[in-house]
Amino acid sequence: MRMGTQAVAAVIAGSAVATILFFGSLKDGNAQTQARARYLPEYTADGQLLLPKNFHEWVYVGSPLTPNALNGGQAGFPEFHNVYIEPGSYEIYKKTGEFPEGTIFFKELQLTLPQENPDGSRTEASGRGYFPGKWNGADVTVKDSKRFADTNGWGYFNFNHHEPKAAMAKVKAKDECAYCHIANAKKDEVWTQFYPLLDNKDAR
Amino acid sequence: MRMGTQAVAAVIAGSAVATILFFGSLKDGNAQTQARARYLPEYTADGQLLLPKNFHEWVYVGSPLTPNALNGGQAGFPEFHNVYIEPGSYEIYKKTGEFPEGTIFFKELQLTLPQENPDGSRTEASGRGYFPGKWNGADVTVKDSKRFADTNGWGYFNFNHHEPKAAMAKVKAKDECAYCHIANAKKDEVWTQFYPLLDNKDAR
Repeated sequence: MRMGTQAVAAVIAGSAVATILFFGSLKDGNAQTQARARYLPEYTADGQLLLPKNFHEWVYVGSPLTPNALNGGQAGFPEFHNVYIEPGSYEIYKKTGEFPEGTIFFKELQLTLPQENPDGSRTEASGRGYFPGKWNGADVTVKDSKRFADTNGWGYFNFNHHEPKAAMAKVKAKDECAYCHIANAKKDEVWTQFYPLLDNKDAR
Repeated sequence: MRMGTQAVAAVIAGSAVATILFFGSLKDGNAQTQARARYLPEYTADGQLLLPKNFHEWVYVGSPLTPNALNGGQAGFPEFHNVYIEPGSYEIYKKTGEFPEGTIFFKELQLTLPQENPDGSRTEASGRGYFPGKWNGADVTVKDSKRFADTNGWGYFNFNHHEPKAAMAKVKAKDECAYCHIANAKKDEVWTQFYPLLDNKDAR
């Protein structure tokens, strides 16, 4: 009976919390912001990272582009790098200025539409340039200071550089990904120099 | 007294709805998807569109890029066009395949970092290409078949092609924006040919 009472109390408490969230979201009469629970990294028993769910609805931060045609046909990433941060982690980052444990960045790779010019560009109604085409795999980074202590607190994962994306991935060795982030990324192994949403508090 | 009772009933009903939303969001034990209320367009008394709120947390769909250097220094849009769809409208689109009334697309313009080469590109650790820099204004489209009947049901707005973005904007004449979308965009004046998230149900 005591458990039953606790369960009822939990439902009532949950209901009260949810009511606050719900009405909080409607305060402007035109809802859009709702408190979001975090999505945290999920691993297999042997430590592989599962492909994060629902990343297309995460917070987008920017798309560096290094086409093959400008890199001797041998670009490390011949695609748009569409980079997202997990929204619950972004909420914390906005307040603290630090990426919390469990932060996930998702870099979806997206090929450009076929080239018409030697520089890889083509012409569409809006002009000559580069236009997004097919998705082409993904890379993911996860912040976990204990699990990835050997790479300064971030783990790096390749979910294929082609479609379909892998369902799970093993962490990469330091000399495959982490070294470059450690050497060149502006803040805590994240390329905030390309992402004003993460770099410029005044611009948000 | 009767009003008081209704208010209490409303709170209880709201609480029940919110509880469903709240627990629904936790069904996988690792929450991320929550039912989202739609954010609908807001207008001034004289029909200007207010700058949409919170667009950086909307659903990103793609970034066509037409740099000045590849367009004789006269690109119509010399920036990354980072395009977002309002999330509540996207939820409906996923189910129906049609953009509902009130759909908003937000195109944030983002300059590339300063060029080092005649094609506008520069070299960073990941290779030679184009890297996102400062934001540079925004264009917005809204679907409203009655309000924008003259432009086939979509209104087009320019919130400056520089920062800061305008707080509100008047609808543009048909020959300034709509004509090009009507002539060239793949689906209902939206450039779904560049956005697999909106174009390819199998790829989602």
